[in-house]
Amino acid sequence: MTAHEERHPDDVQQHLREVQDLLARHKVVEELVHRQDMPRHDLVENLVHKQHVAELQHRLDELHPADIAYILEALPRDDRLFVWDLVKAERDGEILLEVSDAVRESLIETMDPHELKAAAETLDADELADLAPDLPPEVIQDVFQSLDSEGREQLRAAMSYPEDSVGALMDFDMVTVREDVSLEVVLRYLRRFEELPDHTDKLFVVDREDHLKGILSLESLLISDPEREVAEVMRRDTVISFQPDDDADEAAQAFERYDLISAPVIDGEKRVIGRLTVADVVDYIREESEHEMLAHAGLREEEDIFASVWDSVKNRWAWLAINLVTAFIASRVIGAFEGSIEKLVALAALMPIVAGIGGNSGNQTITMIVRAIAMGQVEQDARNRLLKKELGVALFNGLVWGSLLGVLAWWLYGSASLGIVMTAAMTLNLLLAATAGVLIPMIRIRLGADPAIGSSVMITALTDSGGFFIFLGLATLFLL
Amino acid sequence: MTAHEERHPDDVQQHLREVQDLLARHKVVEELVHRQDMPRHDLVENLVHKQHVAELQHRLDELHPADIAYILEALPRDDRLFVWDLVKAERDGEILLEVSDAVRESLIETMDPHELKAAAETLDADELADLAPDLPPEVIQDVFQSLDSEGREQLRAAMSYPEDSVGALMDFDMVTVREDVSLEVVLRYLRRFEELPDHTDKLFVVDREDHLKGILSLESLLISDPEREVAEVMRRDTVISFQPDDDADEAAQAFERYDLISAPVIDGEKRVIGRLTVADVVDYIREESEHEMLAHAGLREEEDIFASVWDSVKNRWAWLAINLVTAFIASRVIGAFEGSIEKLVALAALMPIVAGIGGNSGNQTITMIVRAIAMGQVEQDARNRLLKKELGVALFNGLVWGSLLGVLAWWLYGSASLGIVMTAAMTLNLLLAATAGVLIPMIRIRLGADPAIGSSVMITALTDSGGFFIFLGLATLFLL
Repeated sequence: MTAHEERHPDDVQQHLREVQDLLARHKVVEELVHRQDMPRHDLVENLVHKQHVAELQHRLDELHPADIAYILEALPRDDRLFVWDLVKAERDGEILLEVSDAVRESLIETMDPHELKAAAETLDADELADLAPDLPPEVIQDVFQSLDSEGREQLRAAMSYPEDSVGALMDFDMVTVREDVSLEVVLRYLRRFEELPDHTDKLFVVDREDHLKGILSLESLLISDPEREVAEVMRRDTVISFQPDDDADEAAQAFERYDLISAPVIDGEKRVIGRLTVADVVDYIREESEHEMLAHAGLREEEDIFASVWDSVKNRWAWLAINLVTAFIASRVIGAFEGSIEKLVALAALMPIVAGIGGNSGNQTITMIVRAIAMGQVEQDARNRLLKKELGVALFNGLVWGSLLGVLAWWLYGSASLGIVMTAAMTLNLLLAATAGVLIPMIRIRLGADPAIGSSVMITALTDSGGFFIFLGLATLFLL
Repeated sequence: MTAHEERHPDDVQQHLREVQDLLARHKVVEELVHRQDMPRHDLVENLVHKQHVAELQHRLDELHPADIAYILEALPRDDRLFVWDLVKAERDGEILLEVSDAVRESLIETMDPHELKAAAETLDADELADLAPDLPPEVIQDVFQSLDSEGREQLRAAMSYPEDSVGALMDFDMVTVREDVSLEVVLRYLRRFEELPDHTDKLFVVDREDHLKGILSLESLLISDPEREVAEVMRRDTVISFQPDDDADEAAQAFERYDLISAPVIDGEKRVIGRLTVADVVDYIREESEHEMLAHAGLREEEDIFASVWDSVKNRWAWLAINLVTAFIASRVIGAFEGSIEKLVALAALMPIVAGIGGNSGNQTITMIVRAIAMGQVEQDARNRLLKKELGVALFNGLVWGSLLGVLAWWLYGSASLGIVMTAAMTLNLLLAATAGVLIPMIRIRLGADPAIGSSVMITALTDSGGFFIFLGLATLFLL
């Protein structure tokens, strides 16, 4: 972290307000300057204008890159680009890393290849790999050329791992020591550093070929007698390490479970090739949970709130299309029973209740199962037990709530048999919802798919069409 | 972390399988022993039995508390309690902290006050405060009596803060130093510790009255010349600190934004009273995102997948009741138009499409707005701009998808005017969804409520009833 004053968590809001203030003042002046009826004041206005811009620039120089990113995200497009131009060029790279994908795109669009190259060159290989997908190919090529051979290899490695793997999250900033030196030597070695890599809580003990022998925590380095050797103090047996192909989700769970700050990443031969830190893991957890929340509402990606209507339409398009198809299918199920509805119009008013409650109940079941699967707590042999339990819950709810609605239907339409059909349809649709809520995620896991994606759409589509079919079908059989 | 072998993130799954294996073998023997036709082998069986139990116990002793918690969560009730009995009593406390709420309840139920008190006494004040809500009052009273006055004060403080505040997350394990000593003295001081508190990445520099003067990172302690004084090396201006009343959400964002590992918690007079660590923050982020996901599906709390049917029914009850009410209201809206449906039964088949697409589109809008609000990016003055954009998106989608459906309706039912009514109703319902999607969270914020809770229910209820009303109303006006 670089220079910024003592602060409270909500200070970033205050920074935003200050920048907005300065921008507003700047705009008032701009407007005056552009008014043709005040030509004589041009010079003065221009001076005032420049002063405001200088003040704004000064303010920005003092802020943490993450704070500038926050401010850029909260500003409308024009203001955002104006502020972006004022940011010192050498900070562009770190700020681009901090902003959301949508805002990053909007900023990169305005930069020419030369600026982009300069920004990219301020970054480490692992950071570069994060930014690379958004950069024009010729810029990446240029940057690649300018790296030394170690940097090229790191960049190539970082870019080669799939997005949700440990390899994509790891960095290459680590301090390694040998096991046959004294702690005193390690302490002297560290004093030669200007600074340690962020989140260094342990040093990796390696041999000449970089094989991991153990870890030396800063804690043990500090509390142990400096005369002792690394080999005596380091931990050998309790080292949690990852491989670059490991699933990032599982690594995140391990970080959370064992309260890790950093951990070595090793290759198949136990050679240390990188490092995973809690900062990367926290970012990953946050992004995953946001992604999940957005996906739940059918948003493809985070939407810049100042995005154009057209960008928003594109972001939300796919989900609405799927929804349209499932709604159309449900509508055709109803269409097949139009004759019944014509004879007993009460069915039209009651059928959405059966479908709706089924959808909600199914969503509860599937959320619970998907979550338990994500926590690794459901194995295939638990399926029957879970199914039994969910069917029990569904039967109970169906009989209780279904009876209540049956009585209401009876009271509204004066038909006891309509009430009984209502109760039976509710119960059957809840049983369908429970079965599908358990089986859909289980089957998708067996097919190697992520059980979370689109689970809500699928179960709702099923309980809608199924609910209409069950209710209208029973009514046609028993009431008409 | 205590002793356990080198491992990969998925090793915890393997631990689980091993325990399940041992349990299964134990059960086979149990069954044999209980068979009356093999009385002569009793002794042998008993020995084998004991051997299995001893092996299981030995395996458990080696595991990290978080791993035992994981295993307990993944086991059915009977097996869980059997394993729980085998866990060494002095580890009960730390394991109870790690398990989910539902499982914790099931474990605590089986423990007598004496055992609970013993488990609680192994914990720090801040951990005790986390566990306290689940303990019987007499146990808390007993534990409280057994604490020294500092411990009592800490426990009282920790329990007094609301759940989502920094105070509820902070611990009291910190190392403080004075500013007028040399780093050499600090290094000697640290060597007197058996171990440092977890996640110590910085020491807090305080005066005699515990006022925070600055922070001394372990990094600067290690890389600086030991002859220098703390005051020269410590950071004074760049200290990020929190107060116990600060919102935990904002603290979590600050930890993420500034990549913190630990930060001091100070009172109104800048006296250091505690410490916040990234481990607590990661747990908090994870819990919040889980809570949100569960709340989204109307689950009150995390459900132990081996919970009884009755516990599950209770957990899911409230949401189904709300859903029943909103579904009933929507049904009554349809009921008001039964005359129209009788005359034109196609309306019954088409109306769920209008309502469904409106609900999905509204959910997209409200998710986006709630998220932007949570990130602090929406101020009240952005309301009109957001509204304009969302209405633009809704108008576009309404005209495009509405026209498509209008053509389908025309083709299915051979009525062009029915198609036009369909298009108009879709567009109007999407505009309603967009307006409500922006205004509901904005209004709730102004009323001081959390905009996320139940937003999906509200918008769906509105677009269901609204969609039926708009479509059936337009049809009644123009088609009949």
